[in-house]
Amino acid sequence: MKLSKEKTTIGFVGIGVMGKSMAGHLLGTGYPLHIYTRTKKSADDLVAAGAVWAESVKALAEKCDVVFTMLGFPPDVEAVYFGEQGLLMNMKPGTYVVDMSTSRPDLAMKIFEAATSRKVHALDAPVSGGDIGARDARLSIMVGGDQETFDTVLPLFQLMGTNIVLQGSAGSGQHTKMCNQIAIAAGMMGVCEAFAYAEKAGLDPKNVLKSIESGAAGSWSLSNLVPRIIAGDFAPGFYVKHFIKDMAIAIEAADSMGLDVPGLKLAKSLYVKLAEAGGEDYGTQALYKLYSSK
Amino acid sequence: MKLSKEKTTIGFVGIGVMGKSMAGHLLGTGYPLHIYTRTKKSADDLVAAGAVWAESVKALAEKCDVVFTMLGFPPDVEAVYFGEQGLLMNMKPGTYVVDMSTSRPDLAMKIFEAATSRKVHALDAPVSGGDIGARDARLSIMVGGDQETFDTVLPLFQLMGTNIVLQGSAGSGQHTKMCNQIAIAAGMMGVCEAFAYAEKAGLDPKNVLKSIESGAAGSWSLSNLVPRIIAGDFAPGFYVKHFIKDMAIAIEAADSMGLDVPGLKLAKSLYVKLAEAGGEDYGTQALYKLYSSK
Repeated sequence: MKLSKEKTTIGFVGIGVMGKSMAGHLLGTGYPLHIYTRTKKSADDLVAAGAVWAESVKALAEKCDVVFTMLGFPPDVEAVYFGEQGLLMNMKPGTYVVDMSTSRPDLAMKIFEAATSRKVHALDAPVSGGDIGARDARLSIMVGGDQETFDTVLPLFQLMGTNIVLQGSAGSGQHTKMCNQIAIAAGMMGVCEAFAYAEKAGLDPKNVLKSIESGAAGSWSLSNLVPRIIAGDFAPGFYVKHFIKDMAIAIEAADSMGLDVPGLKLAKSLYVKLAEAGGEDYGTQALYKLYSSK
Repeated sequence: MKLSKEKTTIGFVGIGVMGKSMAGHLLGTGYPLHIYTRTKKSADDLVAAGAVWAESVKALAEKCDVVFTMLGFPPDVEAVYFGEQGLLMNMKPGTYVVDMSTSRPDLAMKIFEAATSRKVHALDAPVSGGDIGARDARLSIMVGGDQETFDTVLPLFQLMGTNIVLQGSAGSGQHTKMCNQIAIAAGMMGVCEAFAYAEKAGLDPKNVLKSIESGAAGSWSLSNLVPRIIAGDFAPGFYVKHFIKDMAIAIEAADSMGLDVPGLKLAKSLYVKLAEAGGEDYGTQALYKLYSSK
């Protein structure tokens, strides 16, 4: 099925740092856009730019043909999708719901089943690329669901991202995002331990970076986060508290599949220690603080 | 000081996979090249190409002005450098020794001190880039020692590598290589856990790679070793047994500096488990075998 610009009304729930950029890309492309978020003030800019404010999830659901959600934590996703006031009870048959939050794979499957029973099409479609990827519409979008639904929503995904892959049935998008977070988690330990070692050994971290970043030790984290560590910049690109949420989901999912992930578990325990020491609102590069004597 | 092509004889000790390529780049550039390695047969190709076979380390030391060593383990380095038959006792004053093996930082300092007391110039200069980097003369060379010695040897380094950085005083090259290995170690856990998770979740690993390799989870290991894992190719680019050696050196050095490196320790324990199960001659990507049910 092809979405018609004249007849398709889009909704977006969850106007945070990421959601604001993503919803912004859906504006002014010919589709009417309705938005809702917990803190109305966060939506002011988008409303000024032409988005229509909805008074509730229910009100938004009743008006929209395709609704995207970009929320913080799985309980937020559950609250928006389920219940009498939720999306699924109030979307019309034949419409689309797309959860772009990073959330539990089993919750994505539960949403898919509940949606299907109400003849609503559902995708899970978490992203990577962070605030900059969202702003530049260069997100990687990892999708779970069926091919036909994917094909229908694809033109809208293309307004927000550049690397859009259908990974498999419902939940597969979330599972893929977990793979992404698992690779990052232990990798961040390696990066922080390497540069804490450099500090202890009296090396110049900029020179170490020059020697190692283009070789087998090279990584996005090394090239993008070590310069921030060197500069003493621990501001969030990606929040420690959100990373802990993602790692908890991944560990639970791995456990349920009978897979041990000791590296991930160790990384999570270190991030929890960092959060408990007051670091939950830092960026993930602040893991370095646990190692450094500075 | 500038090395003269007419008056400078070069030596190379340790003709393994890496050493053979590296010594090969020093051949035919105008400098006479003497070589020695434990297994004479390994030197046949280089001798055929014009290198001069030396009957012992001592015989080589007596003839050469600059000697490079590329050996397996720190005890090999000690055996080549020290003792009556070793390099240091038999090099002339004013000559140069350069250890390009990955070895202990404290051993590099010990060599530097012993060399200096005999008026021999010493550098530690381990490399990264693997067999391919050695073959293509595109190694990253991480150097410890003094500036003047570095400047003198630099034109020879440039025949073997492209990213050549003086990291600081004696031992700093080895310390930098340890940073490289530390970043890789925990990173490999992350990569293997991510793709073991993908396998358990029933995802297509090629699609997962497509979704995550260009983002924040991206790394050299992800892009270069996961395709080998997917293909079931566990042949060594870099041997598990050598990686364990490096991690042991790094852990010992970190301990001696009062730095805890839990990620590195966990990674080493997993690699030791892999080696004990018969995996020591695999490539480092074989860590995946510990996680995978296949």
